[in-house]
Amino acid sequence: MTARRPIIGVFDSGFGGLTVLKALLEVIPDADYAYFGDTARLPYGSKSVDTVARYAVEAAHYLESHGAQLLVIACNTATALALDRITQAAHVPVVGVVEPGAETAAAATKNRKIVVIGTEATISSHAYRKALEMRGLEAREKACPLLVPLVEEGWVEHGVTEQVARIYLGEAFADGFADADVLVLGCTHYPLLKPLLHRVAPSHVNIVDSAESTARTVAGHLQELLPPAGNPKDERRAVARLKFFATDSVEKFRRLGQRFLGHEIADVLHVDLKE
Amino acid sequence: MTARRPIIGVFDSGFGGLTVLKALLEVIPDADYAYFGDTARLPYGSKSVDTVARYAVEAAHYLESHGAQLLVIACNTATALALDRITQAAHVPVVGVVEPGAETAAAATKNRKIVVIGTEATISSHAYRKALEMRGLEAREKACPLLVPLVEEGWVEHGVTEQVARIYLGEAFADGFADADVLVLGCTHYPLLKPLLHRVAPSHVNIVDSAESTARTVAGHLQELLPPAGNPKDERRAVARLKFFATDSVEKFRRLGQRFLGHEIADVLHVDLKE
Repeated sequence: MTARRPIIGVFDSGFGGLTVLKALLEVIPDADYAYFGDTARLPYGSKSVDTVARYAVEAAHYLESHGAQLLVIACNTATALALDRITQAAHVPVVGVVEPGAETAAAATKNRKIVVIGTEATISSHAYRKALEMRGLEAREKACPLLVPLVEEGWVEHGVTEQVARIYLGEAFADGFADADVLVLGCTHYPLLKPLLHRVAPSHVNIVDSAESTARTVAGHLQELLPPAGNPKDERRAVARLKFFATDSVEKFRRLGQRFLGHEIADVLHVDLKE
Repeated sequence: MTARRPIIGVFDSGFGGLTVLKALLEVIPDADYAYFGDTARLPYGSKSVDTVARYAVEAAHYLESHGAQLLVIACNTATALALDRITQAAHVPVVGVVEPGAETAAAATKNRKIVVIGTEATISSHAYRKALEMRGLEAREKACPLLVPLVEEGWVEHGVTEQVARIYLGEAFADGFADADVLVLGCTHYPLLKPLLHRVAPSHVNIVDSAESTARTVAGHLQELLPPAGNPKDERRAVARLKFFATDSVEKFRRLGQRFLGHEIADVLHVDLKE
Protein backbone atom coordinates (compact mmCIF):
# COMPACT_ATOMS: atom_id res chain seq x y z
CA MET A 1 0.00 0.00 0.00
CA THR A 2 2.76 2.39 0.98
CA ALA A 3 4.32 2.00 -2.44
CA ARG A 4 1.24 3.58 -4.00
CA ARG A 5 1.44 6.76 -1.94
CA PRO A 6 3.07 9.43 -4.04
CA ILE A 7 6.11 11.31 -2.77
CA ILE A 8 5.94 14.98 -3.72
CA GLY A 9 9.14 17.00 -3.57
CA VAL A 10 8.72 20.68 -2.69
CA PHE A 11 11.58 23.10 -3.14
CA ASP A 12 12.15 26.66 -2.02
CA SER A 13 15.11 28.89 -1.20
CA GLY A 14 13.87 28.99 2.38
CA PHE A 15 10.62 29.14 4.28
CA GLY A 16 8.20 30.82 1.89
CA GLY A 17 7.51 27.59 0.01
CA LEU A 18 5.91 26.28 3.19
CA THR A 19 2.86 28.40 2.32
CA VAL A 20 2.64 26.26 -0.85
CA LEU A 21 3.15 23.06 1.15
CA LYS A 22 0.31 24.18 3.42
CA ALA A 23 -2.01 24.47 0.40
CA LEU A 24 -0.79 21.11 -0.95
CA LEU A 25 -1.62 19.44 2.38
CA GLU A 26 -5.17 20.77 2.16
CA VAL A 27 -5.72 19.64 -1.43
CA ILE A 28 -3.68 16.40 -1.35
CA PRO A 29 -3.57 15.18 2.25
CA ASP A 30 -2.95 11.55 1.25
CA ALA A 31 0.63 11.93 -0.04
CA ASP A 32 4.11 12.04 1.43
CA TYR A 33 6.15 15.20 1.14
CA ALA A 34 9.85 15.99 1.08
CA TYR A 35 10.50 19.72 1.51
CA PHE A 36 13.90 21.19 0.67
CA GLY A 37 14.72 24.70 1.96
CA ASP A 38 18.04 26.04 0.65
CA THR A 39 18.35 28.27 3.70
CA ALA A 40 22.16 28.51 3.59
CA ARG A 41 21.94 30.32 0.26
CA LEU A 42 18.75 32.33 0.60
CA PRO A 43 17.49 34.75 -0.52
CA TYR A 44 17.36 33.91 -4.21
CA GLY A 45 15.40 37.10 -4.92
CA SER A 46 18.48 39.27 -5.39
CA LYS A 47 20.63 36.74 -7.29
CA SER A 48 21.34 36.22 -10.98
CA VAL A 49 19.76 33.67 -13.32
CA ASP A 50 22.81 31.41 -13.51
CA THR A 51 23.28 31.25 -9.78
CA VAL A 52 19.60 30.57 -9.07
CA ALA A 53 19.43 27.91 -11.81
CA ARG A 54 22.51 26.11 -10.51
CA TYR A 55 21.19 26.06 -6.93
CA ALA A 56 17.70 24.98 -7.96
CA VAL A 57 18.95 22.09 -10.13
CA GLU A 58 21.05 20.80 -7.22
CA ALA A 59 18.02 20.89 -4.96
CA ALA A 60 15.86 19.15 -7.58
CA HIS A 61 18.37 16.31 -7.86
CA TYR A 62 18.53 16.02 -4.10
CA LEU A 63 14.75 15.61 -3.86
CA GLU A 64 14.73 13.06 -6.69
CA SER A 65 17.40 11.08 -4.88
CA HIS A 66 14.97 11.00 -1.94
CA GLY A 67 12.24 9.44 -4.03
CA ALA A 68 10.28 12.49 -5.23
CA GLN A 69 8.01 11.48 -8.15
CA LEU A 70 6.93 15.04 -8.84
CA LEU A 71 8.66 18.32 -8.06
CA VAL A 72 6.96 21.53 -7.01
CA ILE A 73 9.14 24.63 -7.38
CA ALA A 74 7.47 26.52 -4.56
CA CYS A 75 9.60 29.61 -5.12
CA ASN A 76 8.61 32.36 -7.51
CA THR A 77 12.20 33.41 -8.16
CA ALA A 78 13.38 29.88 -8.98
CA THR A 79 10.30 29.31 -11.16
CA ALA A 80 10.67 32.64 -12.93
CA LEU A 81 14.39 32.29 -13.57
CA ALA A 82 15.00 28.58 -13.90
CA LEU A 83 11.89 26.47 -14.49
CA ASP A 84 13.11 25.47 -17.96
CA ARG A 85 16.51 24.41 -16.71
CA ILE A 86 15.06 22.51 -13.76
CA THR A 87 12.57 20.73 -16.04
CA GLN A 88 15.38 19.74 -18.42
CA ALA A 89 17.60 18.51 -15.60
CA ALA A 90 14.89 16.57 -13.73
CA HIS A 91 13.68 13.05 -14.50
CA VAL A 92 10.18 13.60 -13.08
CA PRO A 93 7.44 16.17 -13.85
CA VAL A 94 8.06 19.68 -12.53
CA VAL A 95 5.39 22.23 -11.54
CA GLY A 96 6.20 25.89 -10.94
CA VAL A 97 4.12 28.60 -9.27
CA VAL A 98 3.98 31.23 -12.02
CA GLU A 99 1.63 29.53 -14.51
CA PRO A 100 -0.95 28.50 -11.87
CA GLY A 101 -0.80 32.04 -10.43
CA ALA A 102 -1.36 33.59 -13.85
CA GLU A 103 -4.24 31.19 -14.49
CA THR A 104 -6.01 32.16 -11.28
CA ALA A 105 -5.42 35.86 -12.00
CA ALA A 106 -6.96 35.44 -15.46
CA ALA A 107 -10.04 33.82 -13.93
CA ALA A 108 -10.39 36.55 -11.28
CA THR A 109 -10.01 39.72 -13.38
CA LYS A 110 -12.89 41.56 -15.01
CA ASN A 111 -11.10 44.52 -16.60
CA ARG A 112 -8.05 42.47 -17.62
CA LYS A 113 -5.46 44.56 -15.76
CA ILE A 114 -3.24 42.86 -13.21
CA VAL A 115 -0.63 44.09 -10.74
CA VAL A 116 2.10 41.60 -9.76
CA ILE A 117 4.43 42.12 -6.79
CA GLY A 118 7.54 40.04 -6.11
CA THR A 119 11.28 40.02 -5.47
CA GLU A 120 13.70 41.95 -7.64
CA ALA A 121 14.74 38.82 -9.55
CA THR A 122 11.19 37.57 -10.18
CA ILE A 123 10.07 40.97 -11.44
CA SER A 124 13.17 41.52 -13.63
CA SER A 125 12.56 38.17 -15.33
CA HIS A 126 9.09 39.36 -16.50
CA ALA A 127 7.91 35.76 -16.12
CA TYR A 128 4.51 36.91 -14.82
CA ARG A 129 4.06 39.56 -17.49
CA LYS A 130 4.75 36.98 -20.19
CA ALA A 131 2.38 34.45 -18.62
CA LEU A 132 -0.35 37.10 -18.25
CA GLU A 133 0.11 38.59 -21.72
CA MET A 134 -0.19 35.07 -23.18
CA ARG A 135 -3.71 35.15 -21.69
CA GLY A 136 -4.47 38.55 -23.22
CA LEU A 137 -4.06 40.47 -19.96
CA GLU A 138 -2.18 43.70 -19.21
CA ALA A 139 0.36 43.44 -16.41
CA ARG A 140 2.16 45.94 -14.19
CA GLU A 141 5.07 44.38 -12.30
CA LYS A 142 6.54 45.91 -9.14
CA ALA A 143 9.58 44.71 -7.17
CA CYS A 144 9.09 44.95 -3.39
CA PRO A 145 12.49 43.93 -1.93
CA LEU A 146 11.65 45.02 1.64
CA LEU A 147 8.60 42.81 2.13
CA VAL A 148 10.51 39.55 2.63
CA PRO A 149 12.78 40.95 5.38
CA LEU A 150 9.74 42.56 7.04
CA VAL A 151 7.91 39.21 7.09
CA GLU A 152 11.03 37.49 8.44
CA GLU A 153 11.30 40.16 11.17
CA GLY A 154 7.76 39.09 12.12
CA TRP A 155 6.32 42.55 11.42
CA VAL A 156 3.32 41.19 9.48
CA GLU A 157 0.90 43.63 11.15
CA HIS A 158 3.34 46.48 11.86
CA GLY A 159 2.82 50.13 11.01
CA VAL A 160 6.18 50.23 9.19
CA THR A 161 5.17 47.33 6.97
CA GLU A 162 1.87 49.02 6.20
CA GLN A 163 3.73 52.22 5.24
CA VAL A 164 6.17 50.28 3.01
CA ALA A 165 3.26 48.42 1.38
CA ARG A 166 1.46 51.75 0.80
CA ILE A 167 4.54 53.12 -0.99
CA TYR A 168 4.99 50.03 -3.16
CA LEU A 169 1.29 49.57 -4.01
CA GLY A 170 0.85 53.31 -4.52
CA GLU A 171 3.52 53.18 -7.22
CA ALA A 172 2.06 50.01 -8.74
CA PHE A 173 -1.62 51.07 -8.88
CA ALA A 174 -0.86 54.28 -10.78
CA ASP A 175 -0.39 55.56 -14.34
CA GLY A 176 -3.06 53.57 -16.12
CA PHE A 177 -3.21 50.79 -13.53
CA ALA A 178 -5.38 52.57 -10.93
CA ASP A 179 -8.24 50.36 -12.10
CA ALA A 180 -6.30 47.06 -12.09
CA ASP A 181 -8.57 44.66 -10.20
CA VAL A 182 -6.23 41.77 -9.31
CA LEU A 183 -3.08 41.80 -7.19
CA VAL A 184 -0.92 38.71 -7.67
CA LEU A 185 1.36 37.85 -4.74
CA GLY A 186 4.38 36.76 -6.76
CA CYS A 187 6.41 35.63 -3.75
CA THR A 188 5.62 32.83 -1.33
CA HIS A 189 6.39 35.05 1.67
CA TYR A 190 3.60 37.45 0.86
CA PRO A 191 0.57 35.32 1.85
CA LEU A 192 1.50 36.15 5.47
CA LEU A 193 0.82 39.81 4.60
CA LYS A 194 -2.63 39.15 3.09
CA PRO A 195 -4.70 40.86 5.83
CA LEU A 196 -2.45 43.95 5.69
CA LEU A 197 -2.41 44.03 1.88
CA HIS A 198 -6.22 43.79 1.82
CA ARG A 199 -6.32 47.02 3.87
CA VAL A 200 -3.69 48.79 1.77
CA ALA A 201 -4.75 47.78 -1.77
CA PRO A 202 -7.64 49.64 -3.45
CA SER A 203 -10.93 48.19 -2.20
CA HIS A 204 -11.99 46.77 -5.59
CA VAL A 205 -8.88 44.55 -5.81
CA ASN A 206 -8.86 40.75 -5.54
CA ILE A 207 -5.69 39.27 -4.06
CA VAL A 208 -4.42 36.09 -5.71
CA ASP A 209 -1.68 33.91 -4.32
CA SER A 210 -0.49 31.00 -6.36
CA ALA A 211 -0.26 28.49 -3.53
CA GLU A 212 -3.81 27.18 -3.89
CA SER A 213 -3.84 27.07 -7.69
CA THR A 214 -0.44 25.38 -7.67
CA ALA A 215 -1.83 22.72 -5.35
CA ARG A 216 -4.74 22.10 -7.71
CA THR A 217 -2.35 21.81 -10.69
CA VAL A 218 -0.28 19.28 -8.76
CA ALA A 219 -3.42 17.26 -7.94
CA GLY A 220 -4.19 17.11 -11.67
CA HIS A 221 -0.68 15.83 -12.48
CA LEU A 222 -0.94 13.17 -9.79
CA GLN A 223 -4.11 11.79 -11.36
CA GLU A 224 -2.19 11.15 -14.57
CA LEU A 225 1.00 10.03 -12.89
CA LEU A 226 -0.37 7.73 -10.22
CA PRO A 227 -3.93 6.54 -10.80
CA PRO A 228 -5.89 6.05 -7.55
CA ALA A 229 -5.11 2.84 -5.65
CA GLY A 230 -7.45 -0.18 -5.47
CA ASN A 231 -8.88 0.92 -2.18
CA PRO A 232 -8.89 4.70 -2.20
CA LYS A 233 -10.60 4.90 1.20
CA ASP A 234 -7.64 3.30 2.97
CA GLU A 235 -5.28 5.56 1.06
CA ARG A 236 -7.10 8.71 2.04
CA ARG A 237 -7.27 7.83 5.66
CA ALA A 238 -3.50 7.93 5.85
CA VAL A 239 -2.01 11.15 7.17
CA ALA A 240 0.62 12.96 5.10
CA ARG A 241 4.18 12.23 6.16
CA LEU A 242 6.48 15.23 6.05
CA LYS A 243 10.24 15.29 5.78
CA PHE A 244 12.17 18.55 5.83
CA PHE A 245 15.67 19.23 4.56
CA ALA A 246 17.50 22.51 5.19
CA THR A 247 20.97 23.65 4.19
CA ASP A 248 21.37 26.03 7.14
CA SER A 249 20.46 25.80 10.85
CA VAL A 250 17.86 23.12 11.59
CA GLU A 251 16.79 24.91 14.75
CA LYS A 252 16.10 28.13 12.86
CA PHE A 253 14.17 26.22 10.20
CA ARG A 254 11.91 24.75 12.87
CA ARG A 255 11.37 28.10 14.57
CA LEU A 256 10.76 30.29 11.51
CA GLY A 257 9.16 27.57 9.41
CA GLN A 258 6.14 27.05 11.62
CA ARG A 259 5.04 30.65 11.00
CA PHE A 260 4.72 29.81 7.32
CA LEU A 261 3.35 26.27 7.60
CA GLY A 262 0.90 27.18 10.32
CA HIS A 263 1.82 24.27 12.56
CA GLU A 264 4.78 22.67 14.27
CA ILE A 265 7.72 21.29 12.30
CA ALA A 266 9.31 18.25 13.88
CA ASP A 267 11.65 16.37 11.62
CA VAL A 268 14.32 18.56 9.93
CA LEU A 269 17.52 17.12 8.53
CA HIS A 270 20.56 19.25 7.81
CA VAL A 271 21.89 18.89 4.26
CA ASP A 272 25.36 19.89 3.17
CA LEU A 273 25.45 20.39 -0.59
CA LYS A 274 29.26 20.18 -0.53
CA GLU A 275 30.01 23.60 -1.83
CA MET B 1 59.63 47.70 -7.38
CA THR B 2 56.23 46.21 -8.01
CA ALA B 3 57.19 43.16 -5.99
CA ARG B 4 57.50 45.35 -2.90
CA ARG B 5 53.95 46.68 -3.09
CA PRO B 6 51.82 44.72 -0.68
CA ILE B 7 48.68 42.98 -1.87
CA ILE B 8 45.90 43.25 0.68
CA GLY B 9 42.97 40.85 0.39
CA VAL B 10 39.63 42.21 1.55
CA PHE B 11 36.71 39.88 2.05
CA ASP B 12 32.99 40.46 2.63
CA SER B 13 29.75 38.62 1.96
CA GLY B 14 28.83 41.39 -0.45
CA PHE B 15 29.15 45.16 -0.75
CA GLY B 16 29.36 46.37 2.84
CA GLY B 17 33.08 45.60 3.06
CA LEU B 18 33.63 48.28 0.44
CA THR B 19 33.17 50.84 3.24
CA VAL B 20 36.22 49.23 4.87
CA LEU B 21 38.12 49.22 1.56
CA LYS B 22 37.33 52.93 1.27
CA ALA B 23 38.96 53.56 4.67
CA LEU B 24 41.93 51.36 3.72
CA LEU B 25 42.49 53.39 0.55
CA GLU B 26 42.64 56.57 2.61
CA VAL B 27 45.08 55.17 5.18
CA ILE B 28 47.15 52.94 2.85
CA PRO B 29 46.90 54.35 -0.67
CA ASP B 30 50.17 52.77 -1.80
CA ALA B 31 49.08 49.13 -1.86
CA ASP B 32 47.25 46.81 -4.21
CA TYR B 33 43.89 45.40 -3.21
CA ALA B 34 41.95 42.28 -4.09
CA TYR B 35 38.34 42.49 -2.91
CA PHE B 36 36.19 39.38 -2.77
CA GLY B 37 32.39 39.81 -2.44
CA ASP B 38 30.55 36.53 -1.93
CA THR B 39 27.42 38.03 -3.44
CA ALA B 40 25.93 34.71 -4.58
CA ARG B 41 25.61 33.60 -0.97
CA LEU B 42 24.88 36.86 0.84
CA PRO B 43 23.60 37.79 3.32
CA TYR B 44 25.67 36.01 5.96
CA GLY B 45 23.82 37.88 8.73
CA SER B 46 21.03 35.33 9.04
CA LYS B 47 23.16 32.19 8.61
CA SER B 48 24.67 29.74 11.11
CA VAL B 49 28.27 29.62 12.36
CA ASP B 50 29.24 26.53 10.36
CA THR B 51 27.90 27.86 7.08
CA VAL B 52 29.52 31.28 7.50
CA ALA B 53 32.86 29.73 8.52
CA ARG B 54 32.88 27.40 5.52
CA TYR B 55 32.12 30.21 3.08
CA ALA B 56 34.64 32.59 4.65
CA VAL B 57 37.48 30.05 4.60
CA GLU B 58 36.84 29.40 0.89
CA ALA B 59 37.01 33.11 0.19
CA ALA B 60 40.20 33.49 2.24
CA HIS B 61 41.90 30.71 0.26
CA TYR B 62 40.76 32.31 -2.97
CA LEU B 63 42.34 35.65 -2.03
CA GLU B 64 45.56 33.93 -0.93
CA SER B 65 45.71 32.17 -4.29
CA HIS B 66 45.59 35.65 -5.83
CA GLY B 67 48.62 36.77 -3.89
CA ALA B 68 47.09 38.39 -0.80
CA GLN B 69 49.78 38.83 1.86
CA LEU B 70 47.33 40.00 4.49
CA LEU B 71 43.60 39.36 4.81
CA VAL B 72 41.03 41.82 6.07
CA ILE B 73 37.72 40.23 7.04
CA ALA B 74 35.63 43.31 6.26
CA CYS B 75 32.41 41.68 7.42
CA ASN B 76 31.22 41.83 10.99
CA THR B 77 29.29 38.57 10.74
CA ALA B 78 32.23 36.61 9.32
CA THR B 79 34.57 38.17 11.90
CA ALA B 80 32.18 37.52 14.78
CA LEU B 81 31.42 33.95 13.80
CA ALA B 82 34.54 32.68 12.10
CA LEU B 83 37.68 34.78 12.69
CA ASP B 84 39.35 31.93 14.61
CA ARG B 85 38.64 29.41 11.88
CA ILE B 86 39.75 31.77 9.12
CA THR B 87 42.97 32.58 11.00
CA GLN B 88 43.69 28.86 11.46
CA ALA B 89 43.00 28.08 7.81
CA ALA B 90 44.96 31.01 6.35
CA HIS B 91 48.71 31.16 5.73
CA VAL B 92 48.93 34.96 6.08
CA PRO B 93 47.94 37.37 8.87
CA VAL B 94 44.20 37.99 9.26
CA VAL B 95 42.58 41.16 10.60
CA GLY B 96 38.90 41.30 11.56
CA VAL B 97 36.67 44.31 12.24
CA VAL B 98 35.39 43.54 15.75
CA GLU B 99 38.58 44.13 17.79
CA PRO B 100 39.42 47.46 16.10
CA GLY B 101 35.80 48.56 16.54
CA ALA B 102 35.84 47.66 20.23
CA GLU B 103 39.16 49.48 20.65
CA THR B 104 37.78 52.69 19.14
CA ALA B 105 34.64 52.42 21.26
CA ALA B 106 36.75 52.05 24.41
CA ALA B 107 38.68 55.19 23.50
CA ALA B 108 35.50 57.16 22.77
CA THR B 109 33.35 56.33 25.81
CA LYS B 110 33.30 58.33 29.03
CA ASN B 111 30.67 56.50 31.08
CA ARG B 112 31.77 53.07 29.85
CA LYS B 113 28.41 52.02 28.41
CA ILE B 114 28.22 51.03 24.76
CA VAL B 115 25.37 50.13 22.42
CA VAL B 116 26.25 47.84 19.49
CA ILE B 117 23.92 47.30 16.51
CA GLY B 118 24.41 44.60 13.87
CA THR B 119 22.91 41.66 12.01
CA GLU B 120 21.15 38.83 13.79
CA ALA B 121 24.20 36.54 13.50
CA THR B 122 26.74 39.13 14.68
CA ILE B 123 24.62 40.03 17.71
CA SER B 124 23.84 36.39 18.62
CA SER B 125 27.54 35.61 18.63
CA HIS B 126 28.14 38.25 21.37
CA ALA B 127 31.55 38.89 19.80
CA TYR B 128 31.26 42.63 20.50
CA ARG B 129 30.05 42.17 24.06
CA LYS B 130 33.01 39.89 24.78
CA ALA B 131 35.49 42.31 23.18
CA LEU B 132 34.01 45.27 25.10
CA GLU B 133 33.77 43.45 28.43
CA MET B 134 37.43 42.48 28.07
CA ARG B 135 38.06 46.25 28.15
CA GLY B 136 35.91 46.71 31.25
CA LEU B 137 32.96 48.20 29.36
CA GLU B 138 29.26 47.42 29.62
CA ALA B 139 27.60 46.50 26.33
CA ARG B 140 24.03 46.36 25.08
CA GLU B 141 23.71 44.49 21.78
CA LYS B 142 20.74 44.94 19.44
CA ALA B 143 20.03 43.04 16.20
CA CYS B 144 18.66 45.29 13.42
CA PRO B 145 17.86 42.88 10.55
CA LEU B 146 15.92 45.45 8.49
CA LEU B 147 18.73 47.98 8.14
CA VAL B 148 20.72 46.05 5.52
CA PRO B 149 17.75 45.60 3.15
CA LEU B 150 16.81 49.27 3.65
CA VAL B 151 20.35 50.35 2.67
CA GLU B 152 20.28 48.02 -0.33
CA GLU B 153 16.89 49.48 -1.36
CA GLY B 154 18.70 52.84 -1.40
CA TRP B 155 16.46 54.28 1.33
CA VAL B 156 19.36 55.77 3.32
CA GLU B 157 17.48 59.04 3.96
CA HIS B 158 13.94 57.70 3.87
CA GLY B 159 11.22 58.31 6.47
CA VAL B 160 10.62 54.57 6.79
CA THR B 161 14.28 53.94 7.57
CA GLU B 162 14.22 56.70 10.17
CA GLN B 163 11.15 55.13 11.78
CA VAL B 164 12.77 51.67 11.81
CA ALA B 165 15.98 53.12 13.29
CA ARG B 166 13.91 54.92 15.96
CA ILE B 167 12.29 51.63 16.96
CA TYR B 168 15.60 49.73 17.09
CA LEU B 169 17.57 52.46 18.88
CA GLY B 170 14.64 53.19 21.21
CA GLU B 171 14.80 49.58 22.38
CA ALA B 172 18.60 49.64 22.63
CA PHE B 173 18.99 52.93 24.54
CA ALA B 174 16.61 51.86 27.33
CA ASP B 175 16.60 49.96 30.64
CA GLY B 176 19.89 51.12 32.09
CA PHE B 177 21.43 52.07 28.73
CA ALA B 178 19.70 55.43 28.24
CA ASP B 179 23.04 57.03 29.19
CA ALA B 180 25.23 54.86 26.90
CA ASP B 181 27.44 57.34 25.06
CA VAL B 182 28.82 55.30 22.16
CA LEU B 183 26.94 53.56 19.35
CA VAL B 184 29.06 50.99 17.50
CA LEU B 185 27.98 50.28 13.91
CA GLY B 186 28.59 46.53 13.96
CA CYS B 187 27.80 46.02 10.28
CA THR B 188 29.66 47.40 7.30
CA HIS B 189 26.39 48.50 5.65
CA TYR B 190 25.57 50.92 8.43
CA PRO B 191 28.12 53.68 7.67
CA LEU B 192 25.78 54.71 4.83
CA LEU B 193 23.15 55.45 7.49
CA LYS B 194 25.44 57.61 9.63
CA PRO B 195 23.70 60.97 8.95
CA LEU B 196 20.29 59.44 9.71
CA LEU B 197 21.57 57.61 12.81
CA HIS B 198 23.10 60.84 14.11
CA ARG B 199 19.62 62.40 14.01
CA VAL B 200 17.91 59.40 15.60
CA ALA B 201 20.41 58.50 18.36
CA PRO B 202 20.39 60.50 21.62
CA SER B 203 22.37 63.71 21.09
CA HIS B 204 25.15 62.81 23.56
CA VAL B 205 26.08 59.68 21.57
CA ASN B 206 29.29 59.21 19.57
CA ILE B 207 28.96 56.94 16.54
CA VAL B 208 31.86 54.56 15.92
CA ASP B 209 32.32 52.50 12.81
CA SER B 210 35.14 50.05 12.66
CA ALA B 211 36.27 50.81 9.09
CA GLU B 212 38.76 53.51 10.04
CA SER B 213 40.20 51.73 13.08
CA THR B 214 40.48 48.53 11.05
CA ALA B 215 42.44 50.42 8.41
CA ARG B 216 44.86 51.73 11.07
CA THR B 217 45.30 48.22 12.49
CA VAL B 218 46.11 46.94 8.99
CA ALA B 219 48.65 49.74 8.48
CA GLY B 220 50.39 48.63 11.71
CA HIS B 221 50.56 45.01 10.52
CA LEU B 222 51.99 46.09 7.17
CA GLN B 223 54.86 47.91 8.89
CA GLU B 224 55.90 44.61 10.49
CA LEU B 225 55.16 42.47 7.49
CA LEU B 226 56.69 44.54 4.72
CA PRO B 227 59.15 47.20 5.84
CA PRO B 228 59.10 50.31 3.62
CA ALA B 229 60.91 49.97 0.29
CA GLY B 230 64.30 51.55 -0.50
CA ASN B 231 62.72 54.48 -2.26
CA PRO B 232 59.51 55.18 -0.38
CA LYS B 233 58.75 58.28 -2.47
CA ASP B 234 58.34 56.26 -5.65
CA GLU B 235 56.27 53.73 -3.79
CA ARG B 236 53.89 56.30 -2.41
CA ARG B 237 53.39 58.02 -5.69
CA ALA B 238 51.87 54.85 -7.08
CA VAL B 239 48.09 54.69 -7.13
CA ALA B 240 46.35 51.72 -5.54
CA ARG B 241 45.39 49.02 -7.98
CA LEU B 242 42.02 47.44 -7.27
CA LYS B 243 40.75 44.04 -8.36
CA PHE B 244 37.24 42.91 -7.55
CA PHE B 245 35.90 39.37 -7.45
CA ALA B 246 32.18 38.59 -7.05
CA THR B 247 30.35 35.26 -6.94
CA ASP B 248 27.09 36.68 -8.36
CA SER B 249 26.30 39.18 -11.14
CA VAL B 250 29.26 41.38 -12.09
CA GLU B 251 26.95 44.07 -13.40
CA LYS B 252 25.07 44.27 -10.11
CA PHE B 253 28.35 44.41 -8.19
CA ARG B 254 29.45 47.39 -10.23
CA ARG B 255 26.14 49.17 -9.84
CA LEU B 256 25.53 48.61 -6.11
CA GLY B 257 29.19 48.59 -5.12
CA GLN B 258 29.90 52.18 -6.08
CA ARG B 259 27.37 53.39 -3.49
CA PHE B 260 29.53 51.80 -0.80
CA LEU B 261 32.96 52.58 -2.19
CA GLY B 262 32.04 56.14 -3.11
CA HIS B 263 33.47 55.95 -6.64
CA GLU B 264 33.21 53.93 -9.80
CA ILE B 265 34.10 50.23 -9.91
CA ALA B 266 35.63 49.11 -13.18
CA ASP B 267 37.26 45.73 -13.08
CA VAL B 268 35.04 42.97 -11.64
CA LEU B 269 35.68 39.30 -12.30
CA HIS B 270 33.01 36.65 -11.80
CA VAL B 271 34.13 33.78 -9.58
CA ASP B 272 32.46 30.40 -9.48
CA LEU B 273 33.37 28.64 -6.25
CA LYS B 274 32.26 25.30 -7.80
CA GLU B 275 29.53 24.52 -5.37
